[in-house]
Order: sequence, then C-alpha cells, then structure tokens
Amino acid sequence: MRVYDLILKKKRGEALSDNEIREFIAEYLSGNIPDYQVSALLMAICFRGMNSRETHTLTDSIAKSGDTVNLSEFGTLSADKHSTGGVGDKTTLIVAPIAAALGCKVAKMSGRGLGHTGGTIDKLESIPGYRTALSSEEFFATVRNCGIAVVGQTGNLAPADKKLYALRDVTATVDCVPLIASSVMGKKFAAGAASIVLDVKYGSGSFMKTPDDAEALAKTMVEIGRMAGKRTSAFITDMNVPLGFSVGNNLEVIEVINTLKGNGPRDLTELCISLAAEMASLSLEIEFDEAKCRAENALESGMAFNKFKEWIAAQGGDTSYADDTSKFPKAAFVYEVKSENAAYITAMNSEKIGLSAMELGAGRKTKDDTIDFSAGIILHKKTGDKVMPGDVLATLYTNSEESLAEAERLIKEAAVFGEGAPTKEKLIYKTIRE
Amino acid sequence: MRVYDLILKKKRGEALSDNEIREFIAEYLSGNIPDYQVSALLMAICFRGMNSRETHTLTDSIAKSGDTVNLSEFGTLSADKHSTGGVGDKTTLIVAPIAAALGCKVAKMSGRGLGHTGGTIDKLESIPGYRTALSSEEFFATVRNCGIAVVGQTGNLAPADKKLYALRDVTATVDCVPLIASSVMGKKFAAGAASIVLDVKYGSGSFMKTPDDAEALAKTMVEIGRMAGKRTSAFITDMNVPLGFSVGNNLEVIEVINTLKGNGPRDLTELCISLAAEMASLSLEIEFDEAKCRAENALESGMAFNKFKEWIAAQGGDTSYADDTSKFPKAAFVYEVKSENAAYITAMNSEKIGLSAMELGAGRKTKDDTIDFSAGIILHKKTGDKVMPGDVLATLYTNSEESLAEAERLIKEAAVFGEGAPTKEKLIYKTIRE
Repeated sequence: MRVYDLILKKKRGEALSDNEIREFIAEYLSGNIPDYQVSALLMAICFRGMNSRETHTLTDSIAKSGDTVNLSEFGTLSADKHSTGGVGDKTTLIVAPIAAALGCKVAKMSGRGLGHTGGTIDKLESIPGYRTALSSEEFFATVRNCGIAVVGQTGNLAPADKKLYALRDVTATVDCVPLIASSVMGKKFAAGAASIVLDVKYGSGSFMKTPDDAEALAKTMVEIGRMAGKRTSAFITDMNVPLGFSVGNNLEVIEVINTLKGNGPRDLTELCISLAAEMASLSLEIEFDEAKCRAENALESGMAFNKFKEWIAAQGGDTSYADDTSKFPKAAFVYEVKSENAAYITAMNSEKIGLSAMELGAGRKTKDDTIDFSAGIILHKKTGDKVMPGDVLATLYTNSEESLAEAERLIKEAAVFGEGAPTKEKLIYKTIRE
Repeated sequence: MRVYDLILKKKRGEALSDNEIREFIAEYLSGNIPDYQVSALLMAICFRGMNSRETHTLTDSIAKSGDTVNLSEFGTLSADKHSTGGVGDKTTLIVAPIAAALGCKVAKMSGRGLGHTGGTIDKLESIPGYRTALSSEEFFATVRNCGIAVVGQTGNLAPADKKLYALRDVTATVDCVPLIASSVMGKKFAAGAASIVLDVKYGSGSFMKTPDDAEALAKTMVEIGRMAGKRTSAFITDMNVPLGFSVGNNLEVIEVINTLKGNGPRDLTELCISLAAEMASLSLEIEFDEAKCRAENALESGMAFNKFKEWIAAQGGDTSYADDTSKFPKAAFVYEVKSENAAYITAMNSEKIGLSAMELGAGRKTKDDTIDFSAGIILHKKTGDKVMPGDVLATLYTNSEESLAEAERLIKEAAVFGEGAPTKEKLIYKTIRE
C-alpha cells in the first residue's frame, strides 16, 4: 500500500478496499504515515464520502486498534448510549439507572470535559467519595451486582480514533458523516456493548445543522452498527434548546437527582425515559411502547432513584447527598444575568453557555485545570420563552468573582432574540431503527 | 489569520482574501504552519478551485517569496518560454537562439533533471566546457552582448513554490489548475521576463489528459500573466507523440544542432519556430505571421545556428562539437529494440521513455546520481507509424550493459499498439492569447 495511491483514489471518487483501509489505520497508528498525507486523505473523504462497506471497515479498524472491553458475559443485556454533536449532557446519569432498573447492564467508560463540554466523569466526581477508577474485577462485579458501573477511561481504547480526531480537529475535517460515524461507533464497538442507542443532535451548536444532516449521520451509524452485529437505534434530537436548566457539575447532579425523584424538567425527563426505553427495547427484545411504560414506572415508583443510589454507593459515593441535595457546597458568588430585551428567545447557542460555565470554574480550559464543582449556571429562560427587560435570564454561580463579567457576556451572546415566538420543535424529531 | 479558518472557508467553497493568501504563504515559508494543515488546504483547493483574483494573488505571493531577477534593463525584449506537463524537452536549446536572432533577450535559469525528466542544464553541461554557473555580472553581460544566457538556478527563486510542490507531490494535490498555474507563473514572475510563452501539453504522460483540460490551464495562466502586466501566450500541444527522436543528453544536443542547421525532425522544427515567433511577436509587438517568417528565415539563413554557437562560446562551451557532432563520445553498448507486433502505434507514454533513458544512465534516480551524457535512446518509430515484427522500434545507448533489459522492457511498455492508424492530431492544437 502506498498512501499516495489511496489519496489519489479517494480524490477521484473511487472506493478504498478493505485491505487498504485496515493497512492505512495500522500504519498510521505505528507512526509510518506522516500527518500531511493523512490530512489530505481526510479532506478528500470529506468531499467524496465513503460507502457503507468502507465506513464499516474503517470503524472496525478503529475499534480494533487498541484494547477492547469484553462484555460477552452479559449477552444481549449490555447496552450503551451515546450523545453526539452536543455540548456534554447529563442524560447518562439519568438514563443508566432507569435502563438498569429495567434489566440492562450499563458498563461505561466515560471521559472528562474539556473546553465548553462537560464530562460525565467530572459530574460523578463531584459526588463526595465516588471512585472513578475501579480495578477490572471491581468494574465487572459492580455491573454484575448492580447493573451499572461508570469509570474513567483506562487502557488504550480506540487509539486510532484519538490520533485521527486530533488531526481532524486542526484541519477542518471533523464535519464529515463517515468520519464522525466511524469515530463514534469505533469507540462504541471497543466498549463492547451488544446494544447501542445514539442521541444524534442537530442545531446551531452541533456539526449537524439541520434534521436532514443529523438523519444522514444517524442512518450511517445504525447501518454500520447492524453490519457489526450490534443492535443499534438513533434518536434525532433538537439541541437548539438546552436540555434542563442546569450547567455545572454539582448543579447538574442536583438536577439529575431531582429528575430521578420525578421532579425534573419535562424535556430532560422525557428524553431520558425514551433513551432508556430504547436501550431496554433492544436488550430485552420488547416493543418500545412496552419498554417506555416500564421506564415511566421505574421513575415513578422510585426504582430508578434507588438504582442510582445503589450504583453510587457501589462505587464509594456518599448517597446522603442524593437524599438531601442541600448538602452540596454552595459557590461564594451568585449573580443574576438580566435581559435588556423585550423579545422572544428564538435559539440558544449551547457552546457559548458551556464556555460561560467554564469561565465560572465549572470546566477546564486546559487538560491540567482543576474544576470548581460548585460553579455553574441555572438558566431561567430558554428557547421559546418571552422575556422583558430586567427579567432574569440566568443565575451564575462561582468562587471567582472576576470571572462574572466574561461569563455574563457569553450568556447574553448565547441567547438569540426575535420578534415572534419560534415554532416549537418536537424534542425527538425522528427515530432511526435497523 | 488562523489557518484552520482558511481551510474551513475553502472547504465550504468560499474565496480566500488577498491578505489571507499572502499571510498564509509568508507564514508557511517561515515554518509557522504545519504541513498537515497545508495539505488539507491544498486538497480543499483541488475540489473547490480558486478564482482569478485568488490565483493571481497566490502566484504573486509565490513570486515574491524569495529572490527575483531584475530584467528591466531589457525593457519589453526580455522573453521566456516554459513547457508544462511534459517530460523535459529540448525545445529551449532551439527556441532561445531563434528568438535571440530575432532580437529577444533570453535570460534563463534552468533546472536539472530528476527521475524520468531531463533537465536543460544537464543537456548544456554535456557540451564540453559549457559553464552553467556564471556570476551575476557575467550573466547579464552575456544576455546584453549575445541575447541569451542559460544558467543553473542560483539564489532562492520562489522558495514557497519549492516547499508547496514538495508537499503536493506526496499528497496527490499536484493535479489542480490554480495550483499548477500559480507554481509555473510564480517561478516565471520571479525570473523577470516581460513576455512569457507557455507550451501547455496534454496527453497520457501529462497532468492535463485532454485538450480541454490543457486549455483551462492555459487560459488561467494567460489571465494571471495579464493581471501581472506580463505579455503572455500559450500553445496547447499534443504530447502523445514524443517531440523529435532523441532522448538523452548528447543525443538531444546533436538533434538540437541538426535542427538549428535545418536538418531536424519536422515536428520539433515546426514547434520551435512557432514558440520563438510567439516570443518575438510579444516582445517586438509584431504580428505572429510576420514573426514566424522571420523565425523561418533565421533558421534557413544559419543566423540561428550562429547565435547558438555565439551563446555556447560566451558561456565557455567548445563550439567545435556543434560544427562536428561526431566528436561527442559514443556509448559502449548499442542495442536495438525490435517490435513483436504487426500494428499501428497509437500512443506513446513519454514518462516510460524517460524512465528507460534514466535506466540507461541518461538521468538521475536520486539527486546525487551522476549522469552518463552519452546514454540515451533514438526512437525509430513514433505514434502513427505502422510496424511489423522485427522492425526496430528504438536504439538504446549505454555504458551499463546490465541496464539494457529493463530499458528495453520500458520502451516496449511505452508503445501502445492498435489495429488502425490513429487520427493525426495537429501539433499545436490551439493558441491562447490575451
């Protein structure tokens, strides 16, 4: 294989062979292919695309480029969910206990947040005592006994994706269906679950600007899931409206706990029920409507909240914080951002909201930053709401008073105002199943 | 300027601003932009193209990236020619003396050959005594007194092109009109001539496969020449038929001398007259037909041959070789390649002919190889000829007997056979003028 020939082939719109793709990934990971050839190939893929076979082979090569998690002992019950294209969300913390309450086995390795995205592991670490590092034996035992374990990434999962993504990130080649699909699904395949439910977001802050773009990505991912023998579904959801009201680690955990207690925001609750139901539907081979009934029941009966506490306790976390969320520490400075407009909020830029939270201390600017768990934002107005001058748009929480000005500026920039009420989009625009 | 933004802009099909292009070239040359971003941008340009303004600005930035030759003392008389897309040819050695005999000032810096391409400087060095390195004073004095000087590249002409070309060569981004145009014209602008005549080749061995492709490139180059205030014309010529019969340094010089004496191959003679006439037409502001008459006359009268000897002598070369070409050394091994087919030759791959000559010792495989000036090929059959089994296709000349087998194989591969006589294409398919 000469990489030059692969670039030329793809540039001309021809398909790469399976051997070419596998050898390319192996050689790139071994350091035998220079980045400048890879970025040229990636750009050609952005223009020419890849067919299903190519995308499947690329995904499989990425999945097998490093360690893989063997969840075969759980048979069809192992289920995973992934949100793509969105600012890091809190749904995992709600979906996992509901799905586990229904019988799924949720064994997850999650990442930390960087920049405007929050990380599931950071949110869990904001619960005193929670251990994000378990031994392999502890990890599997926790899944076996409790149905959930969520730990930080260990080992070397899908290293080819890490290397490719770092290059795509600086060469404007992230925004490409087969490359996004193989990156997401390559990591999911390595993570080992038998069923995968995807939440594919569209909207201003996402790579997929329109529902149609998101649908194209969702269909590709469901197709390569099927080709790999995974049960795969995808929801297409609107991210022009932030999910829930809270951003920041403790604030989000509190919102999670409220939701599991049945007192959460309606949009967040509805989406989490649907995601968990889809996981159960795939794992247990039951109808989605039946699974949704069971999921609603798990929430209403307190089974899901109890499962949450069981899980947190199994990983060493102090569940008294779940019983009494007022125990979470408070930030020293609380500041209200007020509207200057009399208008409707027609859209919200979730990336800017994420950046605002980062400024306040809730996220990392660089990998080595430490996080202030109490910092964050509570939104009071969201897309579709009418606001008047002086109305509170959001409350900012921080221990760094000097961050408030920039955080306020970002929040004000995040809100897009218009004269009329925007048409309300369905939360789940479409479901893509095999 | 963030290079990422430039890549994204071009990927989306937007035009880059003049400042963006200038800053990009300056920063890349300074080593501040990694190759992997540049190759992504180049690939995006291959798909999205560049408009005339962008191409002009890129060309100008490349031209000004290093030293430039100031030929202003020669006013409109300084004229240059360039062949693009072809295996290195011998036309410069014939065109320059004809054009100089008509009053043009031909001040050229030429390159050495590498791989399958021969270099003008190598051909000139195969004339005993010829000095390819002159001081700046000697160079200008020779142009002033004799009308021609051809030296090896000195200084740092268009270094941005060297850096970009090296990257394009390994990332399959050579084949792109605005990138080829800016590379060729950037070097021409740096070389300083007021008039530029381009020989844009199409055919199997060229980047431009069809006359239409070649015409698109020619029009772009003439347009950016005009935008830079250069008098520019382009011929579109067929390279499916090799020009003349000889390949290899001494063999080509002998063919050049025969042509200047009026005994050259018809195709080579005709093209050289037209190229020189176009240069004179631009420089002297006379009609092409008038310039062509003068060029034919310069050849027939011996003026062009005398100008050639004057030039070679001015640069230290032994002109007795021009008077008696039998003085050139002979290769030790002479081998005839015979046809196995009874058929017409419908095309010839000039790259393979060039590689065959390289094998025999006429070219360099790597930069540090030395050249055997007596090695090379004389073709006996060319495109359009009918051959019978046993007919001699070519005679190979070498001092390395072990190279013959591979050289013969390449020559046989170079000829494409067919049942019927191919339609004869005009040598000059079209002329593009401002």
